Amino acid sequence: MRSGRRFVAAAVAGVAIAVWTGLAAAQPEVRAAVEEGNRRFVAAFLRGDGKAIGELYTASAEAFPPNGEVVRGREAIARFWQSVIDGGIKGVAVTTLETEAQGDLAYEVGRYALTGEGGKPVDQGKYVVVWKRDDGQWKLHRDIWNTSLPAAK
Amino acid sequence: MRSGRRFVAAAVAGVAIAVWTGLAAAQPEVRAAVEEGNRRFVAAFLRGDGKAIGELYTASAEAFPPNGEVVRGREAIARFWQSVIDGGIKGVAVTTLETEAQGDLAYEVGRYALTGEGGKPVDQGKYVVVWKRDDGQWKLHRDIWNTSLPAAK
Repeated sequence: MRSGRRFVAAAVAGVAIAVWTGLAAAQPEVRAAVEEGNRRFVAAFLRGDGKAIGELYTASAEAFPPNGEVVRGREAIARFWQSVIDGGIKGVAVTTLETEAQGDLAYEVGRYALTGEGGKPVDQGKYVVVWKRDDGQWKLHRDIWNTSLPAAK
Repeated sequence: MRSGRRFVAAAVAGVAIAVWTGLAAAQPEVRAAVEEGNRRFVAAFLRGDGKAIGELYTASAEAFPPNGEVVRGREAIARFWQSVIDGGIKGVAVTTLETEAQGDLAYEVGRYALTGEGGKPVDQGKYVVVWKRDDGQWKLHRDIWNTSLPAAK
């Protein structure tokens, strides 16, 4: 009987440890990883390096640009961002407003601002990114955004 | 020693059970819950019931409409959808393309189409919804979408 109780106690402890380590404990680390990912995104953008932006996404990532179709896979996403850079967007700023994680999945809510030549404001809006822990590293997995500016008439 | 080994074995089993039940096992159930939530969303939309749409969101939900600011909280989201309905959107269709869940968090990727009077196409695009299990029920927690149509010039 005592052995049985110990077994149950150990199983409960195991569940608690799994829940704690897998689900709850990682929150501040996840936010730090997300913010570090965003810093790398912005740095790569500012030096015009679409390929380096692509590396921040999972291999099977999807991006959902407004006014266009779904962009699937790291290489296509790298080309997409390169086309944005080559199209005249000179600056990007992102601000993380919230992250929440469970296990290897997290979501982030944030705000972005895009600028053109001479820092001219081009667009601003909000985004949701689903991040995924991929081989120990948090990467952008699903990436969608839209403008907060009024619609063109 | 034997007791110690049993303790470790039980703890490992506990972790495995927690991971299995909390993270992996629920995938088909989560997709079914998401699709049921979407059916209710569409049904409420078609009968013009913004309040019932609001009930499908968590109390602290956020919606991110294009060309507008963040809409925070169930009541504000209910009013937002009521304004969309009252503004002349008569039909909505949503198609779930993907869901993935861990613990009480899931994300969904899908496509939407909006129609006006007489079934006239008004908009179509894609969305990402972060769903959250709230008191045992999966609800929309973060909801963002954008159009796939070309930008107005």
